Order: sequence, then structure tokens, then C-alpha cells
Amino acid sequence: MIDYEALFKISYGLYIVSSGTKEQGNGYISNTVFQVSSDPPRFATCCSKDNHSLALIKDSGHFSVSVLHADTGIDLIGTFGYRSGKEADKFDGMDISYGHTGVPVVRNHAIAFLEIRVDETIDVGTHLMFIGELLHAELLDDQGDPLTYLHYRKAKKGMAPKNAPTYIDSAKLVKKSHAPEFARYKCPTCSYIYDEEKEGVKFEELPDDWECPICGEKKAEFIKL
Amino acid sequence: MIDYEALFKISYGLYIVSSGTKEQGNGYISNTVFQVSSDPPRFATCCSKDNHSLALIKDSGHFSVSVLHADTGIDLIGTFGYRSGKEADKFDGMDISYGHTGVPVVRNHAIAFLEIRVDETIDVGTHLMFIGELLHAELLDDQGDPLTYLHYRKAKKGMAPKNAPTYIDSAKLVKKSHAPEFARYKCPTCSYIYDEEKEGVKFEELPDDWECPICGEKKAEFIKL
Repeated sequence: MIDYEALFKISYGLYIVSSGTKEQGNGYISNTVFQVSSDPPRFATCCSKDNHSLALIKDSGHFSVSVLHADTGIDLIGTFGYRSGKEADKFDGMDISYGHTGVPVVRNHAIAFLEIRVDETIDVGTHLMFIGELLHAELLDDQGDPLTYLHYRKAKKGMAPKNAPTYIDSAKLVKKSHAPEFARYKCPTCSYIYDEEKEGVKFEELPDDWECPICGEKKAEFIKL
Repeated sequence: MIDYEALFKISYGLYIVSSGTKEQGNGYISNTVFQVSSDPPRFATCCSKDNHSLALIKDSGHFSVSVLHADTGIDLIGTFGYRSGKEADKFDGMDISYGHTGVPVVRNHAIAFLEIRVDETIDVGTHLMFIGELLHAELLDDQGDPLTYLHYRKAKKGMAPKNAPTYIDSAKLVKKSHAPEFARYKCPTCSYIYDEEKEGVKFEELPDDWECPICGEKKAEFIKL
């Protein structure tokens, strides 16, 4: 038996993983970035097979990781996590630099960044895992605390996007007993859940121009669960 | 150029990974446990090639993950993180249950646990990475916050043990400018650093029976850096 609530106790950071070139680059929000070997330091990350960045990482053989500051706004996470690089240039208007390997690095709200050369690619199911040696690591803000997935879920009330390895279909979550007068509404675009009990405001009482705090979807599009 | 301080901005939890059988079981502290694929949910963890548990995971084909509570004392981390199962039975006196697959699960200070069947083993350098399907997940403490590696480093002043993928030889850390009157002392057993500047107490002023807060090593064995 899998209680999906238990999976929320696993800790993750929140990063922008970028790849490609000056001509064609893209980045996406990832919570799976981790060191897998100590000497030389090697890192791994997972990328959804549906992700626009997948081909960019495969073709360039490199990716960068921007470690986001705990104060990062949901607008940046919305841009990189809930929109596809197939439809829009996510780097447009962003503070981008290019690393030693030519890989793009998103600097907005970054407290550190890494550059990794992919040595191995593993098919892990819904995702590919890229493993490789750390070529460069730079600290941009020594005092800044990193954004964690827990902080994002608690403070920003965000859920994982569909392409995240940690994505959980909300139907799989064990239903906790809610007082019958409270309801939950789901954003059809990013799966964000508006929970009346947590928010203390009935969904119907929100203004008509209220938008999904994650992806900007209109209130009228929300689905009552 | 690698600034190793930048790597401290990557977020991890802190877990006890256990394997083996009722007759012969062992567990170790791990900060690398992460979901790598969403449906079915698959997890990965890394295990040092020097680790006693390596053969147990290989032989049994299963491992469990105990998610530790943020309040977990350093004694438990000392037992599982800085002692080897080759020399002592770490499960002695612990609250151990056996999962659906027969794998041991450490219950002490656990807020949740997972059982994983290993499907794939990857050599990533100093470590092996085990990847497999999540068979069981149970929440033990809904309200408990998980212990994070950052919390452990900050509040408990701990560093990664030698067998961790995130282990960093302290000589590689960029030296920050310290006032000359402050010194740092290193535990020869677990690499814990006593930093006079952070502690506000000179090492020499500590009582003679002071012990390493991580592994219990004697004060007299510490090495001045």
C-alpha cells in the first residue's frame, strides 16, 4: 500500500535546470538535483520525457543548475515550471549568462549555480536521469537560503507540475476528513489546488478576476473536486 | 573552478536506509533519497562502495527508507552515520520492524517510511546508485517535519560522513577570512569541525571530558586545523 502523503516527507530543493545554446536554450523547474558521488563530484537530475529540454540536454551534453533563493516569487516558478519551451521562449527578459561549456544559466533569484557534463543517461520510466561530472560551481549569495520544495508547497501552496518526478495525481491522495462545508478546486492547467479550509475563504467569494497563483489560469476554469 | 561552498546550497533530507534480513540487517544515514519517476513511483538512493550495507542491498534486492523527524538527536545519527555495521550491530536496542518484503525498517524518530525493490544498479564512481519501484509507503507522523541536511549542518553542526556522496574534504573548502584569534579543530573520526568563531568558546576552554557531539570521540584526539 502506498500512502502518497508519506512521499511529501521526502526533502527536495527547487532549481532551474537549463540547457542548450545561445541560439536555442531552455530551462525548467526541477526538484531532483543531487550529488551522487563525492570524488570527483558527480550530480544527477531527472527530466520528463515530455520536456522540451530533454533534446537540448541530449544534444548539448551539458546542463546547468540554478539554485533558487527561498524568496523566489511564484511568477518565476510559473514561467519555468508550468509553461513549455515548445510554445514560448522562457529566457525572454531573463538574466541569462553562459557558462564555461556554453550552457545557459538563469541568474534570476539564483544563490548558486552548477555546470554539469552529462556522462550517462538512464531511462527511469516517465523520466530520463542524466548523470555527470560537476565542472563548475559558483556561489552567488553566501547568506541566501535555498528554496525547498516543502517551503514552496507550504508557503506558496504549490504542487508539482505534471512533468515532475514527484507529480502525484490528486485522486491518489488519501482523503482526510474535511468538514462538509469546505470544498477544493483544482486548476486544470497546473493542478494547483485551492483548498477553502486552508485558505479560510470560500472559492465563490474570490473576485472574478482572481487567477491561479501558480500559472495565471482564470478562476472560471477551475474544477470543483 | 568548483567552489565547494556552493554545493551546500543543494537541499537534501536525512534518512536511515536499511537492508538485509531478520538474521543480518544494517542501516546507514543517507541524504540521497529521491523520487526519479512519477508513475509508477520509482526511487533512487546512493550507497558508498565502502559501506557494509552495499552487499545487503545487492543480495536482498530491497531497501527501506526511514524519514527522520527534525528533532532526531545526534546520538541516532552518530550510531547510523559514523559507525560501521562491520564492527557493531547497529540495530541492537533499536525499534525495528520488518516490511512486506522482509526488509528491516528503523522506527526510531521516523515520521514515514518507504520500501523499495531494486530494479537497476548504476556505478556512479565512489558510490553505487540503486533505483527501484516503490512498493510500500507509510506515514507515521503527519505533523512531523522531516530532518533536512541543512538543519543538521546548522543546528547540529554536523558534516557529511566520509561515505556520503556529499562528503567534502575540508581542505577543499574556500577559506573564509577568520579573525586570527579563532581556530578550528577537526574530529579525526567523523570529520566534525569545532569552529571557535561559531561556538563562541575557545576549544581549550572546553572541559576535558568534552566529546565530539557527533561520534563521541575524545577532546584530546581533535586536530587543530
